[in-house]
Amino acid sequence: MNPTNDPTLVSWVKSAQGSDFPIQNLPWGIFSTEGDERRRAGVRVGDRVLDIDALQSAGLLDPRLPAGIFATGTLNAFIALGRDTWSATRARLSELLRDGVSTLADDPVLHARALVPVDAAEMHLAVAVGGYTDFYSSREHATNVGRMFRPDAEPLLPNWLTIPIGYNGRASTVVVSGTPVRRPLGQMKPPTASAPSFGPCKKLDFELEMAAVVGVENPMGETLTVTQADEAIFGWALFDDWSARDIQAWEYVPLGPFQAKVFASSLGAWIVTAEALEPFRVAGPVQDPEPLPYLRQPGAMNLDVELEVAIRPKGATQATVIARTNFAHMYWSTAQQLAHHAVGGCAMAVGDLIGSGTISGPTPDSLGSLLELTWNGTRPITLADGVTRTFLEDGDTVIFTGRAMRDGISIGFGICEGEVLPAPVRAGW
Amino acid sequence: MNPTNDPTLVSWVKSAQGSDFPIQNLPWGIFSTEGDERRRAGVRVGDRVLDIDALQSAGLLDPRLPAGIFATGTLNAFIALGRDTWSATRARLSELLRDGVSTLADDPVLHARALVPVDAAEMHLAVAVGGYTDFYSSREHATNVGRMFRPDAEPLLPNWLTIPIGYNGRASTVVVSGTPVRRPLGQMKPPTASAPSFGPCKKLDFELEMAAVVGVENPMGETLTVTQADEAIFGWALFDDWSARDIQAWEYVPLGPFQAKVFASSLGAWIVTAEALEPFRVAGPVQDPEPLPYLRQPGAMNLDVELEVAIRPKGATQATVIARTNFAHMYWSTAQQLAHHAVGGCAMAVGDLIGSGTISGPTPDSLGSLLELTWNGTRPITLADGVTRTFLEDGDTVIFTGRAMRDGISIGFGICEGEVLPAPVRAGW
Repeated sequence: MNPTNDPTLVSWVKSAQGSDFPIQNLPWGIFSTEGDERRRAGVRVGDRVLDIDALQSAGLLDPRLPAGIFATGTLNAFIALGRDTWSATRARLSELLRDGVSTLADDPVLHARALVPVDAAEMHLAVAVGGYTDFYSSREHATNVGRMFRPDAEPLLPNWLTIPIGYNGRASTVVVSGTPVRRPLGQMKPPTASAPSFGPCKKLDFELEMAAVVGVENPMGETLTVTQADEAIFGWALFDDWSARDIQAWEYVPLGPFQAKVFASSLGAWIVTAEALEPFRVAGPVQDPEPLPYLRQPGAMNLDVELEVAIRPKGATQATVIARTNFAHMYWSTAQQLAHHAVGGCAMAVGDLIGSGTISGPTPDSLGSLLELTWNGTRPITLADGVTRTFLEDGDTVIFTGRAMRDGISIGFGICEGEVLPAPVRAGW
Repeated sequence: MNPTNDPTLVSWVKSAQGSDFPIQNLPWGIFSTEGDERRRAGVRVGDRVLDIDALQSAGLLDPRLPAGIFATGTLNAFIALGRDTWSATRARLSELLRDGVSTLADDPVLHARALVPVDAAEMHLAVAVGGYTDFYSSREHATNVGRMFRPDAEPLLPNWLTIPIGYNGRASTVVVSGTPVRRPLGQMKPPTASAPSFGPCKKLDFELEMAAVVGVENPMGETLTVTQADEAIFGWALFDDWSARDIQAWEYVPLGPFQAKVFASSLGAWIVTAEALEPFRVAGPVQDPEPLPYLRQPGAMNLDVELEVAIRPKGATQATVIARTNFAHMYWSTAQQLAHHAVGGCAMAVGDLIGSGTISGPTPDSLGSLLELTWNGTRPITLADGVTRTFLEDGDTVIFTGRAMRDGISIGFGICEGEVLPAPVRAGW
């Protein structure tokens, strides 16, 4: 076991103990504060954000790290330094935060400057996203969608079991958790209508996903094995691939979802490192037929991360949990997705996102979208206070949470949330 | 008429006259030279590249232009200054190049420094491409592909006549013309095979397209009218959306083309400005049914650009022209494509590309892909020297050319070319 994952480690940051952000987690994000608008790297520990730029300025980090690398506005430059640096930096932070290590703990000035209360930190998108690819790797989700969108055919298409099916997403609308999401306008045509119409989406949905952050550049025309792909992942964050189901149903044949997805995708503020997630590796579902050789996995490459979806309508006293599922359900692993993507020669850059696809489990309460939970709007769900939902309404906030748990340690991802704003209004349309 | 487009204008750069790059054209690109590796903005005139950074350094441009803006490595910063600046800069360049204007013509030192022979200029990608979207807007192409990929159904899908159908492309593999393109590896399954296999693509194809360069940022959640979209376009370049047809056929249902397209897309080195193309505006095909109001065009928004495709096998004495068509055939205009894209709230950035989709005409020799020209490989075409092709072979160079012609003036796009390299070899696969 990597020593930073030792479950007996304890931090002198008291709030870390028993929280989703113990010393064994140390997820990365980008934050600013009211007094210091610079977007800089932070690592979450308990109810504090550790200012990594402040640590570097104080000379507490490896002097070989380039000056200012934690204050470039995103994590990309740091991530680009490579896996050994990720690991060494994590080890150093773990050391500085460990109970009994006084370097930072007993320096009151630095302590006050470098440990920012999480409520005082405004979070920003942690990485500059050049490429965002979304996969479709939950067998249950693909089967459910197939049943609804292609009721007269086999729900799971013949290619699905041999290809990690995916599509190019839109990077320009990847936003950090907390950013409001405007209901999109678009074309739709209900099956009963004789002609398409234009207007605000009526079937606005979330998709519960995890996004992997690519940590190693791969040039155009070069391939990656599954093992290399696995080692190229810096970490994972919660991810909401907002979807307009009525726009999607009308547009998606033959070139796939487009306007139904381009309006927003929300990334959790905290990227939990692959290293912190090592203890939570599990085998995924049995892959039958056996994947082609370029997709075969040498070991357990799924992750046991418990996930939860809640909705809080505007003015509601509380959020209602509407689904619970697990990242481990995915049929295709992130490493297989990335290897498939790179094998065709696609250039991968640091900061690229690999969306898992909607994470649905086998039971009716473990589905990762309203499309599935309400069976395309035919079975409304009831929230606290007795209100019902088929799809999202203006003012609803969708909240994802995720955590991996073992040996009394909880490795949390924080939340990924967004409030739905009304569609834009434009005269004459 | 914009005075810079006056067909009677003549440049003191003698090679401009009668070439594809007369003073009425002035397309933008990014170049470097052996003696000066800096990537800087250039405008093509005759057989010369005019070094715009050198002009700025010599004080010949508007002093309000930010210092160094033409030497940032791409055109994005200049384009971001907006339409009035594009136009004013073009007017100034036109003035400096005009016969009888001595400022530059009679300054031998600056003349030598700022007018680079085109053979001495290495061309680079003209813009940093954040988002690349590819449309599918030739009715003939969509119909032909429908016939081949879905032989048992109506070739043109019901949504096609009301939506400018498109999908997100992969920006990380957009490369400048001249960059070799490696044949991709991938999964394919011929209809006669019982199981899919993995290996080099056997049906490698080009797609003849034009790409529009977005010149105005549009924030997430904001919409554009067709008129606003039209005014947001900086210019157009030739574009080759390389495609792996066997990979595409096996993967594309239900999420659209993915690995079949991510390995390379080639952008011509020269972006011809929207202003230079004003005289070549023509109405496109009649749109029936009438588009929904948000897609209605207030005027002629297609462009009369003659296009040609040639193939030159390795070692061949000459390239063979295999297709001739015209950009004017497109059913949906670039402005309609961009308006549709933005209306759903998709953030657009300066430098984003809008691929037109394959440009096919109504006749068998006006088709913009080998898929169509050889009818999915069933009707080989014959090149000079008697060799035949169904799809591309290693060593083939595909060459697009384009020009708009009127009043004895030819506004050329130069070429967009790429040589096919063999697929990567990896032991054990």
